[in-house]
Amino acid sequence: MMRIEIVNGPNLNLTGVRQPEIYGTLTMEQMVARLRARFPEVEIGYYQSNVEGELINRLHEVGFSADGIVLNAGGYSHTSVALHDAVAAITTPVVEVHISNIFAREEYRRHSMLSDVCRGMVCGLGLEGYRFAVESFLLDNE
Amino acid sequence: MMRIEIVNGPNLNLTGVRQPEIYGTLTMEQMVARLRARFPEVEIGYYQSNVEGELINRLHEVGFSADGIVLNAGGYSHTSVALHDAVAAITTPVVEVHISNIFAREEYRRHSMLSDVCRGMVCGLGLEGYRFAVESFLLDNE
Amino acid sequence: MMRIEIVNGPNLNLTGVRQPEIYGTLTMEQMVARLRARFPEVEIGYYQSNVEGELINRLHEVGFSADGIVLNAGGYSHTSVALHDAVAAITTPVVEVHISNIFAREEYRRHSMLSDVCRGMVCGLGLEGYRFAVESFLLDNE
Amino acid sequence: MMRIEIVNGPNLNLTGVRQPEIYGTLTMEQMVARLRARFPEVEIGYYQSNVEGELINRLHEVGFSADGIVLNAGGYSHTSVALHDAVAAITTPVVEVHISNIFAREEYRRHSMLSDVCRGMVCGLGLEGYRFAVESFLLDNE
Amino acid sequence: MMRIEIVNGPNLNLTGVRQPEIYGTLTMEQMVARLRARFPEVEIGYYQSNVEGELINRLHEVGFSADGIVLNAGGYSHTSVALHDAVAAITTPVVEVHISNIFAREEYRRHSMLSDVCRGMVCGLGLEGYRFAVESFLLDNE
Amino acid sequence: MMRIEIVNGPNLNLTGVRQPEIYGTLTMEQMVARLRARFPEVEIGYYQSNVEGELINRLHEVGFSADGIVLNAGGYSHTSVALHDAVAAITTPVVEVHISNIFAREEYRRHSMLSDVCRGMVCGLGLEGYRFAVESFLLDNE
Amino acid sequence: MMRIEIVNGPNLNLTGVRQPEIYGTLTMEQMVARLRARFPEVEIGYYQSNVEGELINRLHEVGFSADGIVLNAGGYSHTSVALHDAVAAITTPVVEVHISNIFAREEYRRHSMLSDVCRGMVCGLGLEGYRFAVESFLLDNE
Amino acid sequence: MMRIEIVNGPNLNLTGVRQPEIYGTLTMEQMVARLRARFPEVEIGYYQSNVEGELINRLHEVGFSADGIVLNAGGYSHTSVALHDAVAAITTPVVEVHISNIFAREEYRRHSMLSDVCRGMVCGLGLEGYRFAVESFLLDNE
Amino acid sequence: MMRIEIVNGPNLNLTGVRQPEIYGTLTMEQMVARLRARFPEVEIGYYQSNVEGELINRLHEVGFSADGIVLNAGGYSHTSVALHDAVAAITTPVVEVHISNIFAREEYRRHSMLSDVCRGMVCGLGLEGYRFAVESFLLDNE
Amino acid sequence: MMRIEIVNGPNLNLTGVRQPEIYGTLTMEQMVARLRARFPEVEIGYYQSNVEGELINRLHEVGFSADGIVLNAGGYSHTSVALHDAVAAITTPVVEVHISNIFAREEYRRHSMLSDVCRGMVCGLGLEGYRFAVESFLLDNE
Amino acid sequence: MMRIEIVNGPNLNLTGVRQPEIYGTLTMEQMVARLRARFPEVEIGYYQSNVEGELINRLHEVGFSADGIVLNAGGYSHTSVALHDAVAAITTPVVEVHISNIFAREEYRRHSMLSDVCRGMVCGLGLEGYRFAVESFLLDNE
Amino acid sequence: MMRIEIVNGPNLNLTGVRQPEIYGTLTMEQMVARLRARFPEVEIGYYQSNVEGELINRLHEVGFSADGIVLNAGGYSHTSVALHDAVAAITTPVVEVHISNIFAREEYRRHSMLSDVCRGMVCGLGLEGYRFAVESFLLDNE
Repeated sequence: MMRIEIVNGPNLNLTGVRQPEIYGTLTMEQMVARLRARFPEVEIGYYQSNVEGELINRLHEVGFSADGIVLNAGGYSHTSVALHDAVAAITTPVVEVHISNIFAREEYRRHSMLSDVCRGMVCGLGLEGYRFAVESFLLDNE
Repeated sequence: MMRIEIVNGPNLNLTGVRQPEIYGTLTMEQMVARLRARFPEVEIGYYQSNVEGELINRLHEVGFSADGIVLNAGGYSHTSVALHDAVAAITTPVVEVHISNIFAREEYRRHSMLSDVCRGMVCGLGLEGYRFAVESFLLDNE
Repeated sequence: MMRIEIVNGPNLNLTGVRQPEIYGTLTMEQMVARLRARFPEVEIGYYQSNVEGELINRLHEVGFSADGIVLNAGGYSHTSVALHDAVAAITTPVVEVHISNIFAREEYRRHSMLSDVCRGMVCGLGLEGYRFAVESFLLDNE
Repeated sequence: MMRIEIVNGPNLNLTGVRQPEIYGTLTMEQMVARLRARFPEVEIGYYQSNVEGELINRLHEVGFSADGIVLNAGGYSHTSVALHDAVAAITTPVVEVHISNIFAREEYRRHSMLSDVCRGMVCGLGLEGYRFAVESFLLDNE
Repeated sequence: MMRIEIVNGPNLNLTGVRQPEIYGTLTMEQMVARLRARFPEVEIGYYQSNVEGELINRLHEVGFSADGIVLNAGGYSHTSVALHDAVAAITTPVVEVHISNIFAREEYRRHSMLSDVCRGMVCGLGLEGYRFAVESFLLDNE
Repeated sequence: MMRIEIVNGPNLNLTGVRQPEIYGTLTMEQMVARLRARFPEVEIGYYQSNVEGELINRLHEVGFSADGIVLNAGGYSHTSVALHDAVAAITTPVVEVHISNIFAREEYRRHSMLSDVCRGMVCGLGLEGYRFAVESFLLDNE
Repeated sequence: MMRIEIVNGPNLNLTGVRQPEIYGTLTMEQMVARLRARFPEVEIGYYQSNVEGELINRLHEVGFSADGIVLNAGGYSHTSVALHDAVAAITTPVVEVHISNIFAREEYRRHSMLSDVCRGMVCGLGLEGYRFAVESFLLDNE
Repeated sequence: MMRIEIVNGPNLNLTGVRQPEIYGTLTMEQMVARLRARFPEVEIGYYQSNVEGELINRLHEVGFSADGIVLNAGGYSHTSVALHDAVAAITTPVVEVHISNIFAREEYRRHSMLSDVCRGMVCGLGLEGYRFAVESFLLDNE
Repeated sequence: MMRIEIVNGPNLNLTGVRQPEIYGTLTMEQMVARLRARFPEVEIGYYQSNVEGELINRLHEVGFSADGIVLNAGGYSHTSVALHDAVAAITTPVVEVHISNIFAREEYRRHSMLSDVCRGMVCGLGLEGYRFAVESFLLDNE
Repeated sequence: MMRIEIVNGPNLNLTGVRQPEIYGTLTMEQMVARLRARFPEVEIGYYQSNVEGELINRLHEVGFSADGIVLNAGGYSHTSVALHDAVAAITTPVVEVHISNIFAREEYRRHSMLSDVCRGMVCGLGLEGYRFAVESFLLDNE
Repeated sequence: MMRIEIVNGPNLNLTGVRQPEIYGTLTMEQMVARLRARFPEVEIGYYQSNVEGELINRLHEVGFSADGIVLNAGGYSHTSVALHDAVAAITTPVVEVHISNIFAREEYRRHSMLSDVCRGMVCGLGLEGYRFAVESFLLDNE
Repeated sequence: MMRIEIVNGPNLNLTGVRQPEIYGTLTMEQMVARLRARFPEVEIGYYQSNVEGELINRLHEVGFSADGIVLNAGGYSHTSVALHDAVAAITTPVVEVHISNIFAREEYRRHSMLSDVCRGMVCGLGLEGYRFAVESFLLDNE
């Protein structure tokens, strides 16, 4: 059975509550439930933390055994060399997701420290971006 | 019937031939055929040109009637204010696609002039990126 | 009889339709008709293309015989060394026009590659800017 | 009766004397006289100062009652946040004029602090630029 | 028989006419005729266009069969990622030529987007630069 | 009863001990005690952590119910997009405080990532800055 | 008796009139009257000028005898080395005030040339910022 | 007895496993054991965390009593003002260590936020760098 | 009789009083008296103002008749395009003087807007710099 | 008889030995011998030094009498204002040569301090570049 | 017998005399003597020059036969492409040493042109840094 | 008897010959002779070299015994950290001289690496600048 881990960074626990005009009203829990229903053949893990180092810890834990990681590192995406190093250090491929179009927002949000060590990026397609990212790993198995 | 136009920019006519270690061996024609087979309920148009202004012409032609545009402007993505203006001028939403992970390549390729007027971006997921982009428009109709 | 050529670049064919809150509702054809009515003693040519190289071709064609060129190169204004070279290569003086105030818009739109080889610039005064530019050439003949 | 104020900044009192190869030999007084003759239906005020704060004072005095202000802030155009704020604070629309083509001169002269709060700019068309700026306000009344 | 293609970009059709103090009075046609006379054992093709995309088309057409390409992309040299990609995509080696010394001119002309994917560059040696570039390919065959 | 939360970031637990020539000898505990004595009608919470994510957690906890937050994020002020997002995500207004004058110190300390989403800033006025920040919220209630 | 001088720079004479959505409707005169009523034991001077050099003159006049100066140099805050030097030259301590949050506005307004020679800054807290600045000097006397 | 603390930052727990072509195959535990064997007269503490704030906590705990700290802050070295402040706040001298030559890697890794408050740096000499750093403190005692 | 004007900018009226460790204790009046005594054959004028525009006015007044101008524009030296234009507009040659070594001070003080239109600069040699500047004009007359 | 001097800078004495994958295996001595054999009608001098000042000395010695100088200043090409000045000071024209394509290498190697005072540049064409440079001077004599 | 060469650049001949608060009072000769005493099994060469090209010459002489080079290029470290090329050209590994902590000094001293071609760097540990560098080569032989 | 050393850098041996429109026709030898005649009570040494390291050697030789050094380091002024360090290392004060106005020339010539460690600078006043620099040291003895 394939195993894919979704790792969410700071403030994403507020999704559905926070700035709904940007992030929509669906909560992360609902989104994950939908994904598990859609892909019953995949074991989909979910982890969220506001602490940079705990995200690194999680990447270390799952990053040598899972088949794919879907990573939305929130605000840390734009500044964290340490998360970059964690993604580079593990062997599981990572796809980066951003709910909103980071390229249409503030200047400092238009660059991700993570994208050069990820396999690819999906952004601006809302919570469906998580689905596309998960699906991109399924293709590896076809 | 829904109508989605795929617009490809310079050098993408060589896909499948050119630098296969980056772009793979599938040609664009094969990719479009697959998409049409997968989404028979959608009319999928395809256009490619190496000429910047012809791409603008095409966006003008389809950009007020199609339901979605999938745009991979190739090298023009990084420099063209004129294409940016064309995307901003039309009313059809546009999703940007890049086959390779532009963020893991040369410095000048890490910024797209188009992304702030597109709805979102899919990059680094190979030719499947076109599929995800098409699919993201289907959700609008659900 | 004096001869003045108006050369319009990408997306300006949509003027009157595209983003009317920025560009107004008058079409270019209407504007040119007004100018011809106002200055019957002047032969006013009009050319528009979305293709950078075709604009260069046009400048070559008229740039050694016309008495003045009014150039709105649209998005190419901000990036094109080739258009800059074309303006420098011809002998007819060129006045640059921008309908909107480019200095009150996005950062990358606040610099024109063409302005140092043009005689001057009129911007932010709407379609009347074309009139003022035409008129500035008439003064040469007084 | 319409009222338009021309406000000139530092060194423009020397126009006609100073560097005539750049600025021509017509004095400002002669130029204003011509304008008053051409537009007898308009009350045209004229003010010049080399003192930045006095220019601000003048903008405050006329900027809530005049129908238009034609502003050539000379060297202050490129550095003054305070003048920018004054233009933003008043309600009369302002059109910026530069006699020479500032974009074909020194690097530090190619940016105006004022242009984003002005309605538009005319530059490089000599003293006629003042006439076009005045005329652009007349169109508001048509 | 060896085959070398000369590809010239925007405004180079005016060579011999345009700014002769920079570019000399020899036309490109005369230069090519001289080259064909000097190297009768080589088939020397010649192509010029002001349209960026047409230059890309030409590189695609000859870039998998010719033995060498001599490329002077004019103003596009300094801005075109798309031409860069075309040079990278083809298999024929390319030598870049500039008639004038681009390093002794305007700041924006001192960088070529193409040089890192070309084999080398000859610049500032006038139209003879084309000859040296052609000759550098002959050495491959010795 | 009004409720105001003071949130202190990294190294501020050492206040009174660390570099007293910059930060003084009063401890944070003493400062908070003084504030509670001065404003008995206000419930004043206090939280300190050296962990970026724990500060975000705290902002989430109090940021939808408290009447005001006084935030001194210490070194994270200058780098944290994630804290910026947390301040933007909550509904309680935030006033930023810095004990020392950050603008008279090292270059990298002269920019705060937080100030554009805070209501205002008090800096360089020592521990009294906390008092002024608290007091600024009282005015909302007058 | 303690003496504190408030020095206001360009455009602040329009406070209460100009852009009330940013600066509120209270005039400076009303604000000063309130301060004098609140701190009867302090002699509070008030000076405003739109002329940079007059502000320098004023700092020279009061800067060796007053107990504190509250300085809002308006637009000159961001550009004036001369005002910076005046603050450095005098012996009275200076606290900088900005009514609006300068860090949430245009890029060029986010840096103050004065803050490194002032004791501290209060910004974004409206006209109350003047009160806090005055009060910070009172603590010196406690 | 002398006491030296080794503090390791994010991802260094994977040393010996992660990218061995850069970091080698020796684990940190083995390295520390070797050091304790080599310097029996020194008490060598060891701490590792992926959490930035926990590293700060640790520096606070040992930074007023230990004789020396050997700090490899990993990815936080390049971005953390908070860690910089922690090193500046404590009284124990710190020597920075990097296993690989950070100056021969990615651009963003060539600058350390910590080096100006550390006593010195050893980099690119592999795990032996920790030994040299420890030894440099022994010289203080000679 | 030769005529040389000394023009001093903001804060230089405080010389001898202000920061004597940088500027010394001699006042400007004493310095001018010494110069007049040393060069009785020269008429030496002296003017000081803190107002930028008044300095421009003074340059206009003396700049077409004096034989030389010695200009220390103080803080305006580093920011004023308007003063630069005034120096360029007049015909009297100008030598720039700075009492202190501006190149050994703050970053923003290391560039003068005036030096490219002045004949030369003397800096860091104290008030004697004024003497050398005066003397350099005498050589013109030899 | 024509006289051309080849001047080689630092590390070029190792050509043929050092990094042959970049610089090839031909030594400079062999290359010069070939050139002398090919152009018997030209006196070809050769000089190499690793010392910047000795290169300047050599340019001074031959730079007023030789007919042409072929200069490969190696690493000094990218940093030396002094060599730039030497080339500008002499009257013999200079053509710059680089064996490898400096534009396809490290960032700091992509700019030459010398190219704006040289007649032209040949780079990336291996040791043949010296031949083309020599030949370009022969054309002067035709 | 192992052979290690110490190469010292400009001004290091003054060590022990020059700025002792930065560089200490031990001379280089004393330091080398200590090293020879400590490592009798190693042949330790020593060379110093203030001339950049002589340092390159020395690297060429010893750089193909010595077992290790300890290089402190002093001020040339920060600017010399030529020394960088010399280190890259030779086959002996090089370790860079700086006596003081270059990262805690002037901005231009915080970057070394040499570090990316050296094996590693030791800085800020005083003259002991030379010892650690020598010792790091001994490990190659273990 | 006072002793002052004049130290001249690269290309200054050509003064009087090289680009006389910039540097004049007086040779350095003539200038030094004039100085010795003018100041018979001073021993004036003179040294010139095109080699950076020899200039450093000379500064070391005279920099602990001479009473003043007049330094014109030519092109090395703009790039040499090593010369900067030499000036900082010696105890004799140094005044920098430039014959031409370096601030009115190329961009890279407008910054001197030496000026922050020199006492002051005289530039643009021709060869008389050397006289003023010498004279400034005489004042130390008065």
